[in-house]
Amino acid sequence: MTDIKLIKIKESITADNDRSADLIRNELANNKVFMINIMSSPGAGKTSLIIATMKILQNKYHINVIEGDIDSTVDSEKIIRNGGDAVQIQTGGDCHVDASMIKAAIETIDLKDYDVIFIENVGNLVCPAEFDTGANLKVMILSVPEGDDKILKYPLMFNVCDALIINKIDCIEFFDFDFNVLKNRVSLINPKMKIFQVSAKTGEGIIEWCDWLSKQIDCYNKSLNL
Amino acid sequence: MTDIKLIKIKESITADNDRSADLIRNELANNKVFMINIMSSPGAGKTSLIIATMKILQNKYHINVIEGDIDSTVDSEKIIRNGGDAVQIQTGGDCHVDASMIKAAIETIDLKDYDVIFIENVGNLVCPAEFDTGANLKVMILSVPEGDDKILKYPLMFNVCDALIINKIDCIEFFDFDFNVLKNRVSLINPKMKIFQVSAKTGEGIIEWCDWLSKQIDCYNKSLNL
Repeated sequence: MTDIKLIKIKESITADNDRSADLIRNELANNKVFMINIMSSPGAGKTSLIIATMKILQNKYHINVIEGDIDSTVDSEKIIRNGGDAVQIQTGGDCHVDASMIKAAIETIDLKDYDVIFIENVGNLVCPAEFDTGANLKVMILSVPEGDDKILKYPLMFNVCDALIINKIDCIEFFDFDFNVLKNRVSLINPKMKIFQVSAKTGEGIIEWCDWLSKQIDCYNKSLNL
Repeated sequence: MTDIKLIKIKESITADNDRSADLIRNELANNKVFMINIMSSPGAGKTSLIIATMKILQNKYHINVIEGDIDSTVDSEKIIRNGGDAVQIQTGGDCHVDASMIKAAIETIDLKDYDVIFIENVGNLVCPAEFDTGANLKVMILSVPEGDDKILKYPLMFNVCDALIINKIDCIEFFDFDFNVLKNRVSLINPKMKIFQVSAKTGEGIIEWCDWLSKQIDCYNKSLNL
């Protein structure tokens, strides 16, 4: 009687991905690069937020952006038009970016030239939450028009992220969005989550977010020098 | 030498799903029930559109709603509060509903009592497009705040749907959304796609959408009697 060979597909996929993500984090640390994974629904404002952030932080850091999309190059074109550096990943149908895709993107970047990399994940509140990309910080954007109930439906995304950026705050009066209701719900499932209210369009709240992000980057760099 | 046993996971999953979806369509036809699969990003207004549609069409048809969410029962509660009948599917992490989930939901419904079933899919512009649920009509909602470029990034969803509902049209002046740009892009990848501009909130355009939907239902019922 032979032993049964059991292949657990899902466990194996995520374990492999986690190992690749750890290797990416090591490589980033060796090059003193801090990476931020930005996730949201389609159209919540990931590209606009990255551009607004880049414009403020580019005096202090050299920044690169990895754009993840199923198809098209519109977002990386936008980043480049706004004076940034960008690499486009086309996932060819996959609804998230994983560590192997980020590894391929990073191999095209000379890490010695950069301090900060933003990943703009595929617009999706579900699958991207499950895949470690090797980033040092996970940030989700929720835009006001999406509503304050999204945490009830997509709890994992709210659970895994370090910060929540409420975007399009300039149009809050046109939508049924209760910030305090959302804040109370967040405090129940992820009490450490830092929350920002911004408008990437008008610039409201962007300085506060950039100040906090800059502190995270500096703190990471200090820890590398210990 | 033995033959190699090759298991193509993805092909097998979608082929199995397609067979189950066909069986569901047969069962619906036997019971003269028309089913519509509604898909969109999180927060684009699926529930609000279904409620607005239900209020107009419920004088003519008996309607049931199958709500698909990863977690929570908020949407089915909303349908019931608005006088509708609803079944909640909790996918437990899955980012779409498939035919087996719809089959399980339909088994809880007495089909003889209904003419129309709406499926509210999980809020996601990617994976739901890949899975046939057994519905007779696929409809996607794109809300104005998401932007007019989504067709470049999520082409499959725009390709598989019969109709596109542009929702939240009442706030178009606050966002950079060019309806003609979107329309031209749609005409290139899915020229047969019917496009509606609505506001589920103010009621604008809902009558036109309901008239068209009603024609599709009546046409289906006529074809069953041939």
